[in-house]
Amino acid sequence: MIKKVLIANRGEIAVRIIRACHELGLETVSIYSEADRDSLHRKLATESYCIGPKLSKDSYLDMISIITIAEKTNCDAIHPGYGFLAENSDFAEMCAASNIAFIGPSHETISLMGVKDVAKQTMIKANVPTVPGSDGVVQSVEHAKKIGQEIGYPLIIKASHGGGGKGIRVAHNEDELVQNYRLTKQEAESAFGNSDLYIEKYITNFRHIEIQILGDYHGNVIHLGERDCTVQRRMQKLVEEAPSPIIDVETRKEMGETAVRAAKSINYVNAGTIEFIYDLDSNEYYFMEMNTRIQVEHPVTEMITGIDLVRMQLKVAMREPIPFKQEDIEFKGHAFEFRINAENPFKNFMPSAGKITEFLAPGGFGVRLDTASYAGYIIPPYYDSMIAKLIVFGDDRTDALRIAKRALDEFEIKGIDTTIPFHRRIIENDDFLNNDYNTNFLEQHDIIN
Amino acid sequence: MIKKVLIANRGEIAVRIIRACHELGLETVSIYSEADRDSLHRKLATESYCIGPKLSKDSYLDMISIITIAEKTNCDAIHPGYGFLAENSDFAEMCAASNIAFIGPSHETISLMGVKDVAKQTMIKANVPTVPGSDGVVQSVEHAKKIGQEIGYPLIIKASHGGGGKGIRVAHNEDELVQNYRLTKQEAESAFGNSDLYIEKYITNFRHIEIQILGDYHGNVIHLGERDCTVQRRMQKLVEEAPSPIIDVETRKEMGETAVRAAKSINYVNAGTIEFIYDLDSNEYYFMEMNTRIQVEHPVTEMITGIDLVRMQLKVAMREPIPFKQEDIEFKGHAFEFRINAENPFKNFMPSAGKITEFLAPGGFGVRLDTASYAGYIIPPYYDSMIAKLIVFGDDRTDALRIAKRALDEFEIKGIDTTIPFHRRIIENDDFLNNDYNTNFLEQHDIIN
Repeated sequence: MIKKVLIANRGEIAVRIIRACHELGLETVSIYSEADRDSLHRKLATESYCIGPKLSKDSYLDMISIITIAEKTNCDAIHPGYGFLAENSDFAEMCAASNIAFIGPSHETISLMGVKDVAKQTMIKANVPTVPGSDGVVQSVEHAKKIGQEIGYPLIIKASHGGGGKGIRVAHNEDELVQNYRLTKQEAESAFGNSDLYIEKYITNFRHIEIQILGDYHGNVIHLGERDCTVQRRMQKLVEEAPSPIIDVETRKEMGETAVRAAKSINYVNAGTIEFIYDLDSNEYYFMEMNTRIQVEHPVTEMITGIDLVRMQLKVAMREPIPFKQEDIEFKGHAFEFRINAENPFKNFMPSAGKITEFLAPGGFGVRLDTASYAGYIIPPYYDSMIAKLIVFGDDRTDALRIAKRALDEFEIKGIDTTIPFHRRIIENDDFLNNDYNTNFLEQHDIIN
Repeated sequence: MIKKVLIANRGEIAVRIIRACHELGLETVSIYSEADRDSLHRKLATESYCIGPKLSKDSYLDMISIITIAEKTNCDAIHPGYGFLAENSDFAEMCAASNIAFIGPSHETISLMGVKDVAKQTMIKANVPTVPGSDGVVQSVEHAKKIGQEIGYPLIIKASHGGGGKGIRVAHNEDELVQNYRLTKQEAESAFGNSDLYIEKYITNFRHIEIQILGDYHGNVIHLGERDCTVQRRMQKLVEEAPSPIIDVETRKEMGETAVRAAKSINYVNAGTIEFIYDLDSNEYYFMEMNTRIQVEHPVTEMITGIDLVRMQLKVAMREPIPFKQEDIEFKGHAFEFRINAENPFKNFMPSAGKITEFLAPGGFGVRLDTASYAGYIIPPYYDSMIAKLIVFGDDRTDALRIAKRALDEFEIKGIDTTIPFHRRIIENDDFLNNDYNTNFLEQHDIIN
């Protein structure tokens, strides 16, 4: 049984988790850095403890201190939220070793899905479509050329151990392939200490579609439909919606079943997301990666299903079976989430920390706000710039966008810059309104100027 | 067609109406008194105009000034909200005469339902159950005694033209009846200039159950289920919920049909509410009165039906037919509304105006906040003390109460006193939790001390 949960996070997701815990009658322990003394997650928890200095590595990433506080305060469980330690298999393993429930999948699962190559091979075995390419590591330039002849150009060359946008190059023809294969191999060796490369078809005209799944310790896995997270900037999601306006009932069913099959193949437990590339040219979809945590954009799924995902995470961790079957899940209405970042969209999204002097929050029917910000709060410069999630819910996409417009219009934060004006422009863009866009939306449209 | 709406109100309901207008693409005109210069309803409207000095009679009740502003700003419609001019048939008539749509029923309907006696007789004709009593005015003491013999004691003696708690007396036996008949008659004559009295059975063990109805100009009338507003203080509602935990599916259907029949009998158009006394001793229900306006507690109905009632009011006023039939209305989940008043519940609910120095609003899944208040806002002492409506929505009553608890726990308003602590106590009262209470709940329970 779980009676007391330590939340190893900060900001809106820590507040979100505290809410779910308190609704289930669970006590909560917050940890906060020296920069977060006035934070809402500190205030709302049953107990709270300073974990260390302002920098994440000394506080929210300090695994030993976190486990120590959990033990001293008799916590039965730790919820990692997203970011920080949420997908750190070492931390999950430490929790298990300390007899503390890590609210998420097993450390083996986190580890398995955390390595790109291994995750892809695992999905291929589970008969999940993946982007065509080399089966594993490319052996030589000749091997690379042969793959190019087989699957056609453009191709993308990726370092197996890469990440953070490094060790990736595109090739539009065989000459570029030969040249970039060598360059990427050198870069991979020097950046990651491992020169393994793999090659994939380079898909450019696609939507980011992801399926929310939920598994329990009793062998049940269900999906809760898709989210469309195509509006991104430098791989960072900005606007998410559910359902996706490009996914029909049959595709939803098929992608959902695929995601469930994938999750079952690795005995997945707790909430997780399978991200897919949905190729707009071929209408095929391919496994991109699996996120083994609650995601920022989980509220849009909650709005259209009526299911509290964080509560479900807690119940699953308490070894309860999922209280509904796949056929019980109904999708109703349409939801958007707008990530409000403390950034100046007119100055290349420069971060904007400081004191919020006024905070006029939108409210009323169809509006949900998930935030840890308030008038008088000082946003520290050390962490993620997202300070609020504005979620709207309407009868259909058009209706939800109407509500979004009025909610964004009335949302006013003074003292710092935010991305609110940026979102106001996105929802007035014709291609966005007409559902005619891909992940290059921002590059292809002059939203900001 | 309606393109521009003047909102003849202030505070949260003005903001609520502005939101609905903007979602439909309608422009809005706010009016504000000199005391409301910093109010949110002024700020959020497309245009806003000062209507006069602080006192309501010089501003929000100044019918001629309001009509003048509506005409000068080319408004096609006026939404009166609740309170102020919402049930003033003269004002509705003035709007009609000025060719401005009054968003509500006709002035004839307002007038008809505004006089207690006439409303009751109208309902009797429509075969709506009413509290047993004299059919119309009592002729003499002997007549009163005869009624007492017929329907039994206790009885309540009411002035036909009474109101505001005056001209009402209870009689527990014939002696009291004789005495109080004379006293009430004298009081009625001096207070209302009319000594007409009527007598009703005095029902004490009852729940306040009301049915939301909606009619259009095409002869359609539907109901949207009931609200339970039993938790009251001095006839002022404090907590409302939908559905009522004492109403089963059959009773809901029957009461709903009764309300629709009542509304149809008077060709009712727009949103309205039929209030019933639900006698817990007999399980009979009786017409209490009809409110010919949107009500404070309308959000709980919106949450369980998914229908935006204010938007419907606007569509009906635009002569659109109601876009769904009775059988399309589905009730899902359970909602509560807590009226947050700027009053000190520990000092006999003494009003508490002044500056809000901190405003930490609850949010997240299942929480809706309708308010015009914010950190830094100065609550003027001249108007209604209600400053926010906290609405929660859950799977069922127990779930909604869980969410209510965590939302009330995190709601913090500093600088003034509010009824938030009072609500925290109500939802922990066993009789409230067990659904074992009537309209005397507050008198019978020591919530405050």
